[in-house]
Amino acid sequence: MNNKTIILTGDRPTGPLHLGHYVGSLRQRATLQHDYQQFILVADLQGLTDNGSTPQKIQNNIPEVLADYLAAGIDPSLTTICLQSALPALAELTALYMNIVTVARVERNPTVKNEIAQKGFARSLPVGFLVYPISQAADISAFKAEVVPVGDDQLPMIEQTNEIVHKMNSLLPAPVLSHCKALLSETSRLPGIDGNAKMSKSLGNTILLSASEETIHRAVSAMYTDPNHLKVSDPGQIDGNIVFTYLDAFHPDKIKVAEMKAHYQRGGLGDRACKNELEMCLQELIAPMRERRATYIQDKGMLMAMLKKGSEQAHEVTQQTLREVKQGLGLPVF
Amino acid sequence: MNNKTIILTGDRPTGPLHLGHYVGSLRQRATLQHDYQQFILVADLQGLTDNGSTPQKIQNNIPEVLADYLAAGIDPSLTTICLQSALPALAELTALYMNIVTVARVERNPTVKNEIAQKGFARSLPVGFLVYPISQAADISAFKAEVVPVGDDQLPMIEQTNEIVHKMNSLLPAPVLSHCKALLSETSRLPGIDGNAKMSKSLGNTILLSASEETIHRAVSAMYTDPNHLKVSDPGQIDGNIVFTYLDAFHPDKIKVAEMKAHYQRGGLGDRACKNELEMCLQELIAPMRERRATYIQDKGMLMAMLKKGSEQAHEVTQQTLREVKQGLGLPVF
Repeated sequence: MNNKTIILTGDRPTGPLHLGHYVGSLRQRATLQHDYQQFILVADLQGLTDNGSTPQKIQNNIPEVLADYLAAGIDPSLTTICLQSALPALAELTALYMNIVTVARVERNPTVKNEIAQKGFARSLPVGFLVYPISQAADISAFKAEVVPVGDDQLPMIEQTNEIVHKMNSLLPAPVLSHCKALLSETSRLPGIDGNAKMSKSLGNTILLSASEETIHRAVSAMYTDPNHLKVSDPGQIDGNIVFTYLDAFHPDKIKVAEMKAHYQRGGLGDRACKNELEMCLQELIAPMRERRATYIQDKGMLMAMLKKGSEQAHEVTQQTLREVKQGLGLPVF
Repeated sequence: MNNKTIILTGDRPTGPLHLGHYVGSLRQRATLQHDYQQFILVADLQGLTDNGSTPQKIQNNIPEVLADYLAAGIDPSLTTICLQSALPALAELTALYMNIVTVARVERNPTVKNEIAQKGFARSLPVGFLVYPISQAADISAFKAEVVPVGDDQLPMIEQTNEIVHKMNSLLPAPVLSHCKALLSETSRLPGIDGNAKMSKSLGNTILLSASEETIHRAVSAMYTDPNHLKVSDPGQIDGNIVFTYLDAFHPDKIKVAEMKAHYQRGGLGDRACKNELEMCLQELIAPMRERRATYIQDKGMLMAMLKKGSEQAHEVTQQTLREVKQGLGLPVF
């Protein structure tokens, strides 16, 4: 360990990662790992909060997500990749924090409210889902993470974490836990290829990091553009045009994209030409990731050994925090 | 370990134990330890569920409760005394079980409902309190306890534990967890010396196992009898007469107590005589416990070392259960 600022990110292992993850977090992590002490938590327990009855889904996707990490340039010598269920301190801190947070407070958490509505729970809401902001506060504070990359929909989680940190610290003779700051992604959330704001495997509107050349070609061909842009010579709309959204997110040459936008808006630039430009850039981006990923996923033993090693390092860090909290509360530490 | 049936009991370390505990559980445990593989869980985390802001209360009372156990004849070579917060498997199983129990289901638990009303929560209910039946199910099932001594007010907890055991087993390739049976105490709950059905330190109506001769004398003198029994020659009421309730609970000679009751009911037996008889029997019961307890409480190092040893044994048992559950769910076990 060193004196770098600690950053915690993570994913629920509910499916292989796609371009939305790449733009929203993976790309950033591959950069941040050089300047921060970065932990990535494979949140298998959190994945179970709404897959409690189909645990094999979580099991199958752990190596998939690990292969995606490595393929996207996350380097296990710089980033500690660890497994939530292998870190008992997280469940133990959750148990302690549950006593200082009221039911009314978690029910008021806007992220929880939204997700409850989205997932169509109601009376069948699992307790684990209600407790999830507390469990997330345990994850963040166990690592003493000071920076947490999140989307703006997750800001209430950071707020609640800091509330819990403040309350718990106030119960201890001296503060143990660190407050954290959100690091908002520079890119806004990538929409699905069909224009849907939400990208998800179940909607079939994603492009995976493992996508084949042919799959990428078909995805770009099917991509939503301006439905009123019928002739090449017509002026076209940029707003809501997913091809341009993706060009903004992925094309390395911003000046060229700006020129294309101007051309498209005044008329004379066809959808096909734009899609060709985008496809070229996505093929170039994904090809090396796909190849690396194909190698990694064949060696699940290596992937799981890497996860074990990272979990052991994370265990030390999180046990230390738990020990300090317990000592502060006067609980016996054997 | 051996092939004896496993029994789990426990106490929240929120205060030294009193005659209510002795009659309701300690006496029974001292007997059961010969026939069962008995675990006693010092439930410090559960104690925190409604003492989250005053953790030092829990801290201070752990050795008190341990001294009470030894004073009451619980033998650490027969009974494993262990600490809840020293057993991470309990928090980890709680986290797993939370995903298969709905909020509606825990809100419907009659024990939770009653205690919420009794403790005057409402909107300020800590999450830990709502989760407490799940945490109790984790405790019981982690030990694979088949028998759990409870009061009849706790029967819904046993029912909910068995529901969780059934649901979790059904998610695993083969059942891992054991169903449990309630063992109801033979004696009904001992009332306070003032006649209040609930005995509690805050009501000042208890007699502690550490009570001095003088304290016992004053407690028995102040004890609630039949308020209409004014003259010795008057017929007196047995029902609701706490002196007789205590004689039933503590006097070794049941025939003598029956004769006293008959005499009291027909008139001619004074309250003073009854109280003298009770006091003699309580002094005899408590004197050796008080003495043993005074020795034990002076050696907190020994008490905590005993708790550490028991917790290490319990750790092995509960980790094994956790490992089996995780393997069954397909979660990586490193």
